[in-house]
Amino acid sequence: MINFTYYAPTKVLFGKDTETETGRLLTEARASKVLVHYGGGSVIRNGLLDRVKTSMEKAGIDYVLLGGVKPNPRLSLVYDGIELSKNEGVDFILAVGGGSVIDSAKAIALGIRNDEDVWDFYEGKRTAKNCAPVGTILTIAAAGSEMSNGSVITKEDGWLKRPYGNNSMRPVFSILNPEITYTLPSYQTSCGAVDMMMHTMERYFTTEEAMEITDGLASAVIKNVMNNASVALKNPKNYEARAELMWTSSIAHNDITGCGGIGDWSTHNIEHELGGMFDIAHGAGLAAVWSSWARYVYKTKPSRFAKFAKDIFNIDDNDEDAAALAGIEAMEEFFHSIDMPSSIGEMNINLTDDQIEELADKGTNGGTDSMGNFRKLYKQDLVEIFRMAR
Amino acid sequence: MINFTYYAPTKVLFGKDTETETGRLLTEARASKVLVHYGGGSVIRNGLLDRVKTSMEKAGIDYVLLGGVKPNPRLSLVYDGIELSKNEGVDFILAVGGGSVIDSAKAIALGIRNDEDVWDFYEGKRTAKNCAPVGTILTIAAAGSEMSNGSVITKEDGWLKRPYGNNSMRPVFSILNPEITYTLPSYQTSCGAVDMMMHTMERYFTTEEAMEITDGLASAVIKNVMNNASVALKNPKNYEARAELMWTSSIAHNDITGCGGIGDWSTHNIEHELGGMFDIAHGAGLAAVWSSWARYVYKTKPSRFAKFAKDIFNIDDNDEDAAALAGIEAMEEFFHSIDMPSSIGEMNINLTDDQIEELADKGTNGGTDSMGNFRKLYKQDLVEIFRMAR
Repeated sequence: MINFTYYAPTKVLFGKDTETETGRLLTEARASKVLVHYGGGSVIRNGLLDRVKTSMEKAGIDYVLLGGVKPNPRLSLVYDGIELSKNEGVDFILAVGGGSVIDSAKAIALGIRNDEDVWDFYEGKRTAKNCAPVGTILTIAAAGSEMSNGSVITKEDGWLKRPYGNNSMRPVFSILNPEITYTLPSYQTSCGAVDMMMHTMERYFTTEEAMEITDGLASAVIKNVMNNASVALKNPKNYEARAELMWTSSIAHNDITGCGGIGDWSTHNIEHELGGMFDIAHGAGLAAVWSSWARYVYKTKPSRFAKFAKDIFNIDDNDEDAAALAGIEAMEEFFHSIDMPSSIGEMNINLTDDQIEELADKGTNGGTDSMGNFRKLYKQDLVEIFRMAR
Repeated sequence: MINFTYYAPTKVLFGKDTETETGRLLTEARASKVLVHYGGGSVIRNGLLDRVKTSMEKAGIDYVLLGGVKPNPRLSLVYDGIELSKNEGVDFILAVGGGSVIDSAKAIALGIRNDEDVWDFYEGKRTAKNCAPVGTILTIAAAGSEMSNGSVITKEDGWLKRPYGNNSMRPVFSILNPEITYTLPSYQTSCGAVDMMMHTMERYFTTEEAMEITDGLASAVIKNVMNNASVALKNPKNYEARAELMWTSSIAHNDITGCGGIGDWSTHNIEHELGGMFDIAHGAGLAAVWSSWARYVYKTKPSRFAKFAKDIFNIDDNDEDAAALAGIEAMEEFFHSIDMPSSIGEMNINLTDDQIEELADKGTNGGTDSMGNFRKLYKQDLVEIFRMAR
């Protein structure tokens, strides 16, 4: 195992009616003026935004509103949010929504504490020294952004989707009320499940000899998501299943499932290219490419894939290659069981050779960079994986 | 499951040579004058204290030293530390040691930010509003105090051992270098293993329907400790085993193994009475009383004990009582396998009826209070458990 730093300072308030504590937590965080950031109509329709406003008003918290965040959150709205926050003297960003809203909030929070163009951070040109405090009220169990240090933003000019992470971006608090997720469409529940699983699987596939405790926690997380996604799809108002998924989304991405190893993250990076080009749902995109990535790379260390097959699916086979492939196939079957794709074609996208060339080019910065750690992938590797996945 | 708050803000720096980062972390924490708190000679003999001093001096950190912490750390030294810190203008307490040193450091940190007698907090008379920042350099994998909100102090007058917990007491940073634990005597390694397991087991035994993810994480923790304690006892310089134990000690007590339920904590409270009277090692004391507590209370919810037997020992039995009892017995066997007791007599203590009366009296505040949540225990219950355990 390798040395590591673990740092997950977010205070999580979990359970029924916890959104009524918003005002108290903002007071505790010494927020003086809050930008309330959200997406479309669902938080208005289901009354969540009103409950949050009421809690803030009771606590005497001054705020300004900015809605309109879309999936694959856009840089242009981030710029709007930075400008509005600076004009209004905002010192705290409150995200009311899912991962896209939280990621957009983090980008705005970066922007109001740094004079540089915020996109420079996402392009890897600079490191942020500071970030305004962010709080979240989560509405989708998926992205884990409610405890993570990361944010993913899409720049419309060129449709570039890029991640940036910095410990100063970890939310100060996150409010998780599972009841808020009762009304999520099945498709979003499934996409969320894949996203959580992939946050753990990206960390699981390491060439380091991983820590036994980390593998134990990771296996518990993956199996928990699989069990409870199936329950929540059948009965969307099952509190226990929704709660398991919601808390597990945070655990899956607060780094505790990766201590002692170096995660891979190619599946995420490949999906970021697809998501930039086609504006697909992140979770579905991950499911669509994972098994092709896995079949392309497993020979780098078949024993790791065989252990995955054993840990998650109880597959026992002395032939490591056979076990590895059986585990990949079992995961594809699980994805199909929750109506997720295991190929890009299943999302009604027919990738052309030219598009594959463009995606592989963007993913490797014009063929100059590589991605991944389990196996380093260069431009031609990405071309092969996209061909297998289409 | 019940609503919960999860808050574990400690930055953990884990791995080889990490103690050389002490100066950097103190600078990051804006410490201006540090009280370096430690126990006996081991941190001097093995050179750790010198390496820590060197790191602080390189970073230009001013400090003052206070050694002499004993197991079951004493209130009188806490008072000395508070006085010294106030006289020297100390604003940061750095614990170099195990749980006793960290707990003593937390009590001093409370004392320098509150005008009241610090013992009032431990007696439950007051709640602390604030606490000076604490950092730790851990030398024993056991107490979990390096990420927890708690501290246990013993008042010599009356030999009262009392816990106090407050989120402001969670360490700012903790440095965990597994190599430092290579020279731990076997007895301490075993005591540490029991302490970690019990931190998780206290939380596991809840009458709430627990969260599946919490049970999954808890099972991973308990099995990890069992596996790796056995390896470390055979080969004390096995880095992987020492690392697993050290990181698991933090996870076992940073609250993630208890989310959604209400822990019991009777075994800890019973041991605190024994430890106050006999100055025994905490882990051995826990092992000595746990199975008697378990046999006394399991009928409150046999299904929970049956699940424990299944999760930890893979015991399958449709008769819940039989499964519960088999699980308790298997745990006693494990304790014996690492030279831990399963009765008080095995620690060469022959409890008299009068002593049992006194212990039960102290444990229930003169018969007026109860302890425990899985089953509430009153004075006569404690008398019965001590009789079973002696």
